[in-house]
Amino acid sequence: MTRDKVLAEIITIGDEILIGQIIDTNSAWMAIELNKAGISVKQITSISDDEQHILQAFADAETRADIIIITGGLGPTKDDITKKTMYQYFGATAWKTDDETLKIIEKIFAKYNAPLLESNKLQAAVPNNCEVLLNDLGTAPGMLFRKNHKIFISLPGVPYEMMNLMEHKVLPTITSIFKLGNIVHRTILTVGVGESFLADKLENIENQLPQHIKLAYLPKLGQVRLRLSSYGNNQAQLKNEIDTYVEKITAAIPDNWVAKEDTPLEKVILNAMQAQGLSLSVAESCTGGTISQLFTQHAGCSSVFMGGGIVYSNQLKTKLLGVKPETLKTYGAVSEQTINEMVTGALANFNTDYALAVSGIAGPDGGQPDKPVGTVWIAVANKDKTIAQKFVFGNKRQQNIERSAVNALHLLYQLLKNA
Amino acid sequence: MTRDKVLAEIITIGDEILIGQIIDTNSAWMAIELNKAGISVKQITSISDDEQHILQAFADAETRADIIIITGGLGPTKDDITKKTMYQYFGATAWKTDDETLKIIEKIFAKYNAPLLESNKLQAAVPNNCEVLLNDLGTAPGMLFRKNHKIFISLPGVPYEMMNLMEHKVLPTITSIFKLGNIVHRTILTVGVGESFLADKLENIENQLPQHIKLAYLPKLGQVRLRLSSYGNNQAQLKNEIDTYVEKITAAIPDNWVAKEDTPLEKVILNAMQAQGLSLSVAESCTGGTISQLFTQHAGCSSVFMGGGIVYSNQLKTKLLGVKPETLKTYGAVSEQTINEMVTGALANFNTDYALAVSGIAGPDGGQPDKPVGTVWIAVANKDKTIAQKFVFGNKRQQNIERSAVNALHLLYQLLKNA
Repeated sequence: MTRDKVLAEIITIGDEILIGQIIDTNSAWMAIELNKAGISVKQITSISDDEQHILQAFADAETRADIIIITGGLGPTKDDITKKTMYQYFGATAWKTDDETLKIIEKIFAKYNAPLLESNKLQAAVPNNCEVLLNDLGTAPGMLFRKNHKIFISLPGVPYEMMNLMEHKVLPTITSIFKLGNIVHRTILTVGVGESFLADKLENIENQLPQHIKLAYLPKLGQVRLRLSSYGNNQAQLKNEIDTYVEKITAAIPDNWVAKEDTPLEKVILNAMQAQGLSLSVAESCTGGTISQLFTQHAGCSSVFMGGGIVYSNQLKTKLLGVKPETLKTYGAVSEQTINEMVTGALANFNTDYALAVSGIAGPDGGQPDKPVGTVWIAVANKDKTIAQKFVFGNKRQQNIERSAVNALHLLYQLLKNA
Repeated sequence: MTRDKVLAEIITIGDEILIGQIIDTNSAWMAIELNKAGISVKQITSISDDEQHILQAFADAETRADIIIITGGLGPTKDDITKKTMYQYFGATAWKTDDETLKIIEKIFAKYNAPLLESNKLQAAVPNNCEVLLNDLGTAPGMLFRKNHKIFISLPGVPYEMMNLMEHKVLPTITSIFKLGNIVHRTILTVGVGESFLADKLENIENQLPQHIKLAYLPKLGQVRLRLSSYGNNQAQLKNEIDTYVEKITAAIPDNWVAKEDTPLEKVILNAMQAQGLSLSVAESCTGGTISQLFTQHAGCSSVFMGGGIVYSNQLKTKLLGVKPETLKTYGAVSEQTINEMVTGALANFNTDYALAVSGIAGPDGGQPDKPVGTVWIAVANKDKTIAQKFVFGNKRQQNIERSAVNALHLLYQLLKNA
């Protein structure tokens, strides 16, 4: 089978997504991996554990895509009906027990000393016309069905099981079946300006773009990512061409771009500081660990990020950072005076080259007439310079926390850049 | 219009979800709000900025649902084609400028001192057969179209704009158009046992459930939420009935349930500690702020959560917690000796009733023969008791961090429960 463009569709099965109890992170991960392999995702569909709906979704997807990947609904409990619905859709004639899967199930239950129930053993039973994709990490096997030159693949919904199967079974299998065209994506990170501002600056470049290259604007809390996507056969040529446009675009917005890759702002900062052998600490009040968590999610951050204080209480602001009780009493925890003492205290007590401090009223309570909910002071400092800035965001707690974090990173980035 | 069951479908438009660059959190939020209003979400569909695909998705959704809510693709840039595709689908005959929207656009640009571009002004233009749902917080208005007794609503993809429009415009409008049946959900949080174990314990109860009540198992990293959903007209009766089943289920798993509501474990802990007037601090190494962030996302946490140390470096473990340099040298940062000194140090230095400490090798690097990646020590303590436990998770950084966090919360919950 050879195709110019291979299309995939992702179907997630389970009421939990439809009632909003879980967020569908699996599909985003799968979409990234499929795109890397040169497969475009045409549609992502979430449907309920309902036989008729599943059958309809399979039939619809078959008209649009070459590869249909289905996750979820494979658990041992009654509400999981994916497997028997697939039995029906693909016209299987009997159930077969997959011995390798049964061995894994027995091993997992033995390891955890858990009683092996009949419902667990049944997870090794599959329709007799499927090819089993062995799931080394869990009890529900992957299954591959072929129908009218289309490939259907069913995977468990547990993220790490799905990821392991995708990496070791699904992608190699798909690559061997289809000869794939290429998609090249490049992303430019910009900070501090809006979508329209950028679109205006880039209008001429956008008008020059050839048909097979697309530019998308992805805004998110004070950051806009610009994503160029190019479709074709010759990967080297696609890459060269897209590199040229990345250079043109960054040249048109010299003060606004931060990275020529899809790197989060905190990782841009970690990379820059690591290259210069600099260390960083934080003093977080209203962001309560959010900024630390952003840094520490990245492997290798420990060469730059030393840690810091979550100084939620005034007592800890004084104890860990040396903020003077008089300052807190006179000006309050959310003030220029306090934030300056916080950042200076972090720099000194945590013994780092750079420090960052945040103190604000995330809400929904705690606002005062002169300091409404959403008032946040942020400071960044190195040995030579301290910058403190006041922000007034809105009245939504989570949003105030996230905006505080992104603005703190932006201030730190600017201090670093101008040092 | 009166319906027994009103069905909604959510369509998100934009390549960014299909290439996995953003995770679709909007749909989960909308699903929660629609369900609360008695509207079941039949399907969630993500499609690209492609005219034919959008038209097909609208037509398909119209066959399944009464209300179709569309988000995204309303920005001022070229890749956003939702509005003109709606113009076509709903057979508009002209564009009209919505004056109220134009005023808001002008106000927003004046507030930020940003130049008002032609492309921004065009955001106030809408198809002449739509009803505008005024967006107070952004430049793209909501739009409502009626077609064959179906309601189509288009909203901006920016989360807080979408949320504001849903709350103040969409839900009141929908409620006034449809007379809605009821759905009642109740969730029980369980910790520390698996889906099959619970299913086995609950088999008899599940077999007794009437047709209109469904039980779903929602597993996530060592926690399983049990969700009961009941459909019908008489809300009081639905509630009574479902309450009875909640009591039956929790009675069948007395050691495993943690909350009779959809409350995250850290919030269960905050509530219990607040009720007893207890305070908490943390000392996070490998979790790097994740646990603090879990607590501080909740409004009102400051009455319990005092803060703590992000002690990523050994230097800060000594400085903030008083961990002895000899202990670190002899046993290493990831050891029973160190974790005990960490939790004791947090309790003393941060002056709280309870403390929690985590130190581990999140990976992917840093493993040693006797301490592979995924080795994590967790300790919890109050004045009378310290519990330290070693875990060996896998080799994925993010998963190791999350598992460390949930197990730390579970240990803390147990210490609290048995105090």
